[in-house]
Amino acid sequence: MFPMSLIVQKFGGTSVANTESLQVVAQRIIDCKNKGNDVVVVPSAMGSSTDELINLAHELSSKPSPREMDMLLSAGERITMSLLSIHLNSLGYKSISLTGSQAGIITSSRHGKAEIEEITGERVREGLSSGNIVIVAGFQGFNRDTREITTLGRGGSDATAVALAAALGAERCEIFTDVDGVFTADPRVVNDAKLIEEISYDEMLEMASSGAGVLMARSVEFGRRYNIPIIVKSTFTNNKGTLVTEKTMEEAIVSGVTHNDKEIKFTLYGVPDQPGIAGKFFGALSESGINVDMIVQNVSKKSITDISFTAPVDQKSDVEEILSKVSKDLNAEGYDIDENVARVSIIGAGMKSESGVASRMFNTLGKNSINISMISTSPIRVSCVINRKDTKKALESLHKEFIS
Amino acid sequence: MFPMSLIVQKFGGTSVANTESLQVVAQRIIDCKNKGNDVVVVPSAMGSSTDELINLAHELSSKPSPREMDMLLSAGERITMSLLSIHLNSLGYKSISLTGSQAGIITSSRHGKAEIEEITGERVREGLSSGNIVIVAGFQGFNRDTREITTLGRGGSDATAVALAAALGAERCEIFTDVDGVFTADPRVVNDAKLIEEISYDEMLEMASSGAGVLMARSVEFGRRYNIPIIVKSTFTNNKGTLVTEKTMEEAIVSGVTHNDKEIKFTLYGVPDQPGIAGKFFGALSESGINVDMIVQNVSKKSITDISFTAPVDQKSDVEEILSKVSKDLNAEGYDIDENVARVSIIGAGMKSESGVASRMFNTLGKNSINISMISTSPIRVSCVINRKDTKKALESLHKEFIS
Repeated sequence: MFPMSLIVQKFGGTSVANTESLQVVAQRIIDCKNKGNDVVVVPSAMGSSTDELINLAHELSSKPSPREMDMLLSAGERITMSLLSIHLNSLGYKSISLTGSQAGIITSSRHGKAEIEEITGERVREGLSSGNIVIVAGFQGFNRDTREITTLGRGGSDATAVALAAALGAERCEIFTDVDGVFTADPRVVNDAKLIEEISYDEMLEMASSGAGVLMARSVEFGRRYNIPIIVKSTFTNNKGTLVTEKTMEEAIVSGVTHNDKEIKFTLYGVPDQPGIAGKFFGALSESGINVDMIVQNVSKKSITDISFTAPVDQKSDVEEILSKVSKDLNAEGYDIDENVARVSIIGAGMKSESGVASRMFNTLGKNSINISMISTSPIRVSCVINRKDTKKALESLHKEFIS
Repeated sequence: MFPMSLIVQKFGGTSVANTESLQVVAQRIIDCKNKGNDVVVVPSAMGSSTDELINLAHELSSKPSPREMDMLLSAGERITMSLLSIHLNSLGYKSISLTGSQAGIITSSRHGKAEIEEITGERVREGLSSGNIVIVAGFQGFNRDTREITTLGRGGSDATAVALAAALGAERCEIFTDVDGVFTADPRVVNDAKLIEEISYDEMLEMASSGAGVLMARSVEFGRRYNIPIIVKSTFTNNKGTLVTEKTMEEAIVSGVTHNDKEIKFTLYGVPDQPGIAGKFFGALSESGINVDMIVQNVSKKSITDISFTAPVDQKSDVEEILSKVSKDLNAEGYDIDENVARVSIIGAGMKSESGVASRMFNTLGKNSINISMISTSPIRVSCVINRKDTKKALESLHKEFIS
C-alpha cells in the first residue's frame, strides 16, 4: 500500500462567489480526493462579501474597533466553509468544517493583521483520520493570551493554506484562483505576457512584493521556509498553472516584469544627517503597521539628507500623520507627497550571475523617454519608480527587451 | 451609592435589519446604559439573513448536515453583534461582542435544536466590570463534549436573552421586537385586539404554545423558572409594552384569544387498544423532534381507538413517515391527514376559579356555525380545532364574547 498524500487546496473569493461556483470547487476537491489523497480545503469568503461587511461597518463607524472588525469579518469564511461542507456531504463525501480556532491556528494578538505563530491542527488530523475532507476557514485564527478571534489581513487565506500544508506535512499546496497562474507580466497590461510554468520561491517573493497580485509574499515565505511546493492555478480552466518551488531547472535572467501603481512616493527632505534617523523614522512607520516598500536615502555634501520611500495608497493619511510629526522631531525642512508614481520591476534568479541587467533596464526606459525617480535593487530584482502615466509603455518595453 | 442594575436587552431580526435600524437599536441601548444600568445585549441575525443562508444551503444539498448548518447559521448573529459593537464604540460607549461559546453558553449537543444547559458567563462579567456594554450572540452555544458550535432553533435568541438574564441575576429582560407587545388577539385578524399590559408566565406560556408568535414558550419557561420579569416591546415606538411576570394583580377570566393555522391534524384510526400504544407512538414522534401539540384519544366500545393530534405543517413529511411505519406496527386500520384546520384558544388565569368558560366558548362557536373537531384544555386554557376557513370568524366572536 502506498501511504496517502495530503494536499491542501485553497480557493479564492471569486472561486466561491456563489452556489454555482461552489459546485465547481466541490468537483475540484472530489477529483483530488478520488485520486487517493487526503484533502484539506481552505476557502475564502464568498465573492465580495468581505467588502460588503467592511462597508456596513463604515456606515456605522468612521474608525471601527479592530477587535470587532475581526469578529465581523471572520463570519465570511464560516459561511463559505459550511456551505462547501454541506455540499460535499450531500454528494456522499464526508466532510467537516473547522473555524480557525477549532483548527488550532494560533496567531499573534494584532487584530486585522495577525501573524500565524503555530498551527496545532489536532482536530484537522482527527477529521482526516476519520475519512473526512477537512475544510478550514482561511484568514482567521485565535490568540491564546487574549482568547480573541483574529484575522490575518490581506493574503491571509493563502497564508493559512500554506502554513497548514507546512504544519500537516502536506505534499503540496494548491492555490486556486481566477487566473491561470503567474505570468511574465500582468496580461491585462502586456499582451505578450506568458504563463510561467515554474518559478523559485525567491523570484516569486520578489514578484509578489513588487506587484504581482496573484500570490502574497507572506504565503510564499511560508512555502520557502518549510519547502512546500505551491501551485497557483485557475478553478475554472484546466491549465497546469504555475509551480512555485525551491529551485527551477534553468534560471532565467528575467522571469517576470511587475508593476505596482497602488503606491505613493513620500519624501522627507532637508533632514540634518545624524546616526539613527532612518531607524527612528522607519521604526515609527513600522509600529503603525505601514508597509514601506522602496527606500532611498541620499546624503548631500552639507550633511543634509533626503529620505524617499513608497507606501500603499490606502495608508496615505497614516503616513502623513507620522511624517508631519517626525519631520519636526528630526528638524527636517519638510516633506513631500507624490501620488502620480508607479513602480516597475524586473525579477530573475539569473541576474545573480549576469551583469549589466540593471543598466539594460535603465537604457530601455530611457530610450522610451521614461524618467526614473527612484531605484532599488536586490540580487534578483531591479525596481524603478516612474511616472504613473508611463506604466504601460514601461512594462511593454521591458517585457519585449527581456522576455518575449 | 445604589448598586447598578443589570438589564438584558434582546433585539429581533427586523430590529437589526440594516444599518439604519441598528442605529435606532444603539440608541435604545445607550438610553438604558445612561440610566445607570449595566447592559447586556442579545441581537438576532439581520433581517432575513438566516433565511438567505438556509436557502443557499438548500441550493447545495436537499438534506444539509445539521452540524454544518449550525456552523453556517451561527455566522448571522456574529455579523449583527460586531456591527452593533462597532457602532456603540464609535459613539463613545465601550462595547465588546462575544460569541455563544465565548460567553459560556453551554448547550446540549443536538444540532439545530440545542438546549441551554448552563451559562458560565465569565467573559460577560469581565466585560461588564470593565465598563463595557456586552453584546452576546443570540441563538448559538457550544457543547462541551463534542466541542461543537450549536444553534438553539426557533426562539433561540429569546431563550439566550432570558437565560442570560437568569444566569447573571439581571433585574429584567427586555425583548425588543417589531410589535408593541402581546395583544388580546392577533391585531392583524381582530380589529378590537388590545395590548396586554401585564400577564403571568403561565398565561404567556399558554398564549405562546397556542399561537401567539411574539414570544416563544421556551424563553417564558426560563423566565418563570428563575423569576425574571420579561418585557416585550417595540424597538420603533415608545409604547410601554407587555410585562410578563409571576403574578398579575387581577386575574382576568380570559386574557387573550390565540390562533394557530400553521398546523395539520393527523389521525391514526382503528388501532386495537392495548396499554402503551400512545407512549410508543408519541415516543417515536418525539425522538424525531416533532412538536406534537394537541392530542385526543377516544376508545370506542370495541376496544378500537382513534388517536388524533396536530403538528406543525413544516413537519408534515416527517410525521407521515412515522405514521405509515407505526400504523403497521400497531395494526391500525390507517391514517388520515387534514390540512384545512386551525386551532383557536382562550387563555386566562381566572378560568381556574370560574366555571362554565369552556361551554361559553363552545356555545359561541356553535352560534356562529363553526364546527369543532378537537378539544383540549388546561387549567387556564381551552383550545378547539376548527376548519381553517372559519379562523377569523371564530377569533372575532370569541374576542367579543370574552374580552372587548
